[in-house]
Amino acid sequence: MLRTFTLAGAAGAVLALSSFARPTPDEGMWLFNNAPARQLEERYGFEMTPAWSELVQKSCVRISVGGSGSIVSPNGLVMTNHHVASDLLERLSSADRNLLERGFFAASTEEELVCPDVHMDVLWSITDVTAEVDTSAAGLDAAAAGTARRKAMTAIEDSAKERSGMHAEVVTLYQGGRYHLYLYKRFDDIRLVFAPEKAIAFYGGDNDNFEFPRYCLDVTFLRIYEGGNPYQPEHYLRWSENGTKEGDLVFVAGHPGSTQRLNTVAHLEYLRDHSVPFAMHRLMRLEVLLNIFSGKSAEHRRIAEGDLFSVQNSRKVYVGRMAGLLDPAVMEAKRVEESRLRAVIAGNPEWQEQWGGAWYEIAVAQQTAANMARRYSAIGGSAMGLGSELAAYATMLVRLHEERPKTSTERLREFGEGSLPQIFQRLYSPAPLYPEFEVMRLESALSLMAELLGADDELVATALAGKSPRARAEECVLGSKLMDVAERRRLAEASADEFAASDDPLIELVRSLDPMARALRTKYEDEVQSVERAAYAKISAARFAVLGEMVYPDATFTLRLSYGAVAGYQDGDRSIPPYTVFAGVFAKAAERKGEDWYTLPASWTKVADSINGQTPFNFVSTNDIIGGNSGSPVIDRKGEVVGLIFDGNIQSLIGNYAFSDVQARSVSVDARGIMGALEQVYGADRIVNELRAPNTPR
Amino acid sequence: MLRTFTLAGAAGAVLALSSFARPTPDEGMWLFNNAPARQLEERYGFEMTPAWSELVQKSCVRISVGGSGSIVSPNGLVMTNHHVASDLLERLSSADRNLLERGFFAASTEEELVCPDVHMDVLWSITDVTAEVDTSAAGLDAAAAGTARRKAMTAIEDSAKERSGMHAEVVTLYQGGRYHLYLYKRFDDIRLVFAPEKAIAFYGGDNDNFEFPRYCLDVTFLRIYEGGNPYQPEHYLRWSENGTKEGDLVFVAGHPGSTQRLNTVAHLEYLRDHSVPFAMHRLMRLEVLLNIFSGKSAEHRRIAEGDLFSVQNSRKVYVGRMAGLLDPAVMEAKRVEESRLRAVIAGNPEWQEQWGGAWYEIAVAQQTAANMARRYSAIGGSAMGLGSELAAYATMLVRLHEERPKTSTERLREFGEGSLPQIFQRLYSPAPLYPEFEVMRLESALSLMAELLGADDELVATALAGKSPRARAEECVLGSKLMDVAERRRLAEASADEFAASDDPLIELVRSLDPMARALRTKYEDEVQSVERAAYAKISAARFAVLGEMVYPDATFTLRLSYGAVAGYQDGDRSIPPYTVFAGVFAKAAERKGEDWYTLPASWTKVADSINGQTPFNFVSTNDIIGGNSGSPVIDRKGEVVGLIFDGNIQSLIGNYAFSDVQARSVSVDARGIMGALEQVYGADRIVNELRAPNTPR
Repeated sequence: MLRTFTLAGAAGAVLALSSFARPTPDEGMWLFNNAPARQLEERYGFEMTPAWSELVQKSCVRISVGGSGSIVSPNGLVMTNHHVASDLLERLSSADRNLLERGFFAASTEEELVCPDVHMDVLWSITDVTAEVDTSAAGLDAAAAGTARRKAMTAIEDSAKERSGMHAEVVTLYQGGRYHLYLYKRFDDIRLVFAPEKAIAFYGGDNDNFEFPRYCLDVTFLRIYEGGNPYQPEHYLRWSENGTKEGDLVFVAGHPGSTQRLNTVAHLEYLRDHSVPFAMHRLMRLEVLLNIFSGKSAEHRRIAEGDLFSVQNSRKVYVGRMAGLLDPAVMEAKRVEESRLRAVIAGNPEWQEQWGGAWYEIAVAQQTAANMARRYSAIGGSAMGLGSELAAYATMLVRLHEERPKTSTERLREFGEGSLPQIFQRLYSPAPLYPEFEVMRLESALSLMAELLGADDELVATALAGKSPRARAEECVLGSKLMDVAERRRLAEASADEFAASDDPLIELVRSLDPMARALRTKYEDEVQSVERAAYAKISAARFAVLGEMVYPDATFTLRLSYGAVAGYQDGDRSIPPYTVFAGVFAKAAERKGEDWYTLPASWTKVADSINGQTPFNFVSTNDIIGGNSGSPVIDRKGEVVGLIFDGNIQSLIGNYAFSDVQARSVSVDARGIMGALEQVYGADRIVNELRAPNTPR
Repeated sequence: MLRTFTLAGAAGAVLALSSFARPTPDEGMWLFNNAPARQLEERYGFEMTPAWSELVQKSCVRISVGGSGSIVSPNGLVMTNHHVASDLLERLSSADRNLLERGFFAASTEEELVCPDVHMDVLWSITDVTAEVDTSAAGLDAAAAGTARRKAMTAIEDSAKERSGMHAEVVTLYQGGRYHLYLYKRFDDIRLVFAPEKAIAFYGGDNDNFEFPRYCLDVTFLRIYEGGNPYQPEHYLRWSENGTKEGDLVFVAGHPGSTQRLNTVAHLEYLRDHSVPFAMHRLMRLEVLLNIFSGKSAEHRRIAEGDLFSVQNSRKVYVGRMAGLLDPAVMEAKRVEESRLRAVIAGNPEWQEQWGGAWYEIAVAQQTAANMARRYSAIGGSAMGLGSELAAYATMLVRLHEERPKTSTERLREFGEGSLPQIFQRLYSPAPLYPEFEVMRLESALSLMAELLGADDELVATALAGKSPRARAEECVLGSKLMDVAERRRLAEASADEFAASDDPLIELVRSLDPMARALRTKYEDEVQSVERAAYAKISAARFAVLGEMVYPDATFTLRLSYGAVAGYQDGDRSIPPYTVFAGVFAKAAERKGEDWYTLPASWTKVADSINGQTPFNFVSTNDIIGGNSGSPVIDRKGEVVGLIFDGNIQSLIGNYAFSDVQARSVSVDARGIMGALEQVYGADRIVNELRAPNTPR
């Protein structure tokens, strides 16, 4: 499934790589302020009006747990994926009330459940601030320029926020080729309306994840509240009466997390030889440890389940990504594309002078990244993630006290004034924590440090403080008071002296490691990230000069529009039709009888005889999407909801590096399947009526 | 469970480390020609007679699949663990007849099933050949001495085999301090008599593996045949009528695989910082990939199940081992022990001159090992294991043709004349192979190479030959004819020219890699292994000089005797009694209702009301054992069978580096539990009578 920042790559696909980086048909995650109007008109005879564009833009939401959604009623009803909302469902669950297992339906507005620690953003405006960001860096060397740009970005955000009252983010596009200021309306009173049982939402489990044909009701309805009442939006998407048929043009509007399609070959080689293998190692290790923890009891399983899903999903993505990077066809196409662009640049002395050195600069930065990869990963990267949420709280507290006295632009980016609310939302989260789970996670991170660096390494020795990973994790977690929200609040609000006096063992662990973590971060920002930014800005300028501006930027977890058609595909001898229907899931359940992930919930088996088996359930289309797009609405020409993105097929995982429309497909829940399940399985008339009502007056 | 070569280490245990390497009470995996007679007499008042010793030695068998067993009837009935025999059960299974799932009972001798590719060895004699091996190496530098020793060992084996007709092995003891020639009676007609269902043999699955209390009927009975008839041994163990009680002295006679208790600190640090982390990485990665494969269908699960068990078991061991190595108490004790010995040696100029440099030499060798660890592992070590059994056949064929023309002593050790039968037994095995599984395993190994070394590495580029790991694995496996035993035999028997003409893609893959693999092996043997041998020989001599000869050598998968007492232990607040009973497994099944690994087979639920719930089922004792001891008989003073070793508890995993008797325990099936199940659950009167009959005349 397409969780945020679970990126991709896949082997064996016959690639339709664009020669020389011109998008193939249906390729692209387009900016709303640079939409592919011409392609749409030429290929699909579709005219994209400003009204259509505004309706779609302002009906879409970005969800802070990492995913997309859309407003689908005049009362602020939001549709997203079950797997996007699963963290929320988990936080609302307990040993006695397992919402993931049982599902949830609020029979009335009053019964809708407040979801802690989640907010939604609606994109309101986009402004190009490239000149302002670049000016700040003019004439400086790469490291200083990088610092200057980060400061400028924070300053722009702070002032925009003050001016507009909206949430402001400066987005880095084209790896540093453009900077755009995005203003968002932010909503933080979010409530749970409806969720099906995990058994049907995630039907087929990890086995069938990224596969097709599929049979998943991967939907959850939330509701935005404002001032204690359901939000009354100006813009929302209407529900299609008739849905799609094969060949129909469909749009996906959502927040693809990250792609690396514009990376240089040297950068891709770094990913292939260092970054992705390490991510696989870390994920597979964690998958095994979470499986072990889950095996201890049903309650252990419930506690670890969300993490396990997420890790398995990412693992599947990274395995596909590695396969893609090891596919010579992919790399060769990238090499050809890069040499052609470089040849054109080299043919123009002025261009060569301005931009020609960029590829080498990036190659050098990759070497630096490779050399520091183990250490930087071992300490959990820029955020010093130590595996455990509790340890993350300690890091936030230590860094908060260090950063807050500085001016906003001088701080670490995520502690800038505009970003502090997110820090506090997470820090004060009432989400339950489980000591045994936190011990396991911290122990795992401490042991991983030693496995990567050796036990005598300074960082490892400091972290372990003369104890075994298990003993140290127990000491830190069980001795800490940070389980208590009030204590976290007290420490966050404490004076510098009061905070300095804290001898919470987790705080002390973080204090002992933070200088090393910050030094690594600085080195990475100065010698890798800043160099990349500056060099990619040059390459982007070169690309714009050669190809014009009709190039879409890599994904950045910001709002994008993709277009495509409902279409099946060929897999070896098998011709895979674009739609599945309800009857298919009953057939599958019979075929895989007795297997956990293929057992239907009682709500479905009960209606096996009465349900309309021919109702479309899931479908595939050629839209260009990636992790983060989960929960995006699929929209037709009229701007109506015809589906809900929840996955790509395994062949789509290559999309992290290159688009293909031969076999790669987006996978959606059909809007008719959602409506059918609400009516025929769950009797959720309240939602059915709410979704249908807006259509009546038209 | 204690599979061969699944070694150990564990955290948090309060260590009763012997100061200065004198064994603690009950410590030791003793040689049959250097048994701890004095300790047994002083501590337990037990006099070990030559007759007792010979009876036990000649009743024990080493099983080629990696484990121990014992002859328990005058008709060659052999008792071992279900998990030792599970490879055999798997090979005898098919999609329609799953013996692991269903169990097996031959109602008559005629119904006993021939097990392919397995042999059993009974140790017949031991001769010290240290002088002969060492003389061959006199005056040579470490690398040349290493080669000379390996040649001398092969020559000794070959001539012993010719002289005696028995299987001969020169065993390296004390890491090179002693060399003993072991002669074995070898049996290769082995048949399956009885196996319970996996659900009760491996009750609790991976969850409960290495835990106690336990409820596993981890037993299988095989039978040795000679000349087509049941073997009539001179020596066999009788079945105890009354079993044990708490505090009783019990012996374990079996084949502990490997320990590293005599390793220097530098050597342990190499294991901690390089070798064990890498093994964990490899195992966890494989566990995830096997889980994915298993998820595809019930048949996929059946195919991968044996490998998955084995990998999970090893992973648990290595995690424990890593925890032990990261436990400062363990390392500190080793440091203290080492410095004391070195101080004594340093105090005697002659000793210092002879032996004082050994620790430094080993430290240098560890640095070399660390530097080459990734490459050597990536190519699958000395045997160039490429993950797939089919690829292993190709390697055997290529090396066979290269080695056979040489004289026996000039060959790679495993191709010496005396070892060739094992090569052929494996190569001509009729065990089923599954193309999809072989593709997956080879793809995994090829991808791992790239993940470890980077795709541009010469070794990786050669292996992939311009293809993705998936495409290359498919090409090699699906294009190979080695699935066919006749083709393997044809190629093994082919002339040099005929073999050179083979264009089997797997053979060609192996040919392209073998020069690099051999170069690495030579480097490892010359600069690591030979240096270690020479240096450990010095350290052993030093230890003998200081401590006398009453030191047991590290485990070497050769016959050893350990002694101890039936005893429970304390775990935190919990006092764990030494025995479990049948009633306990029914209680556990009720508690963990609905969970796969806790569901009893029908044969057991059927007798829930009639079975004697108080029958002892599993028990723990203080015996010093390790992986490879699986299937060892537990014997009382009279030399009668009172149990069957199948596991150690989690606290025993530290045993790889140091013995502790505080919490570490061996876990056995009680002989009364085995008899009770045969009688009350399986109605296996034929075996019951056979086990009981020999007792009558006494």
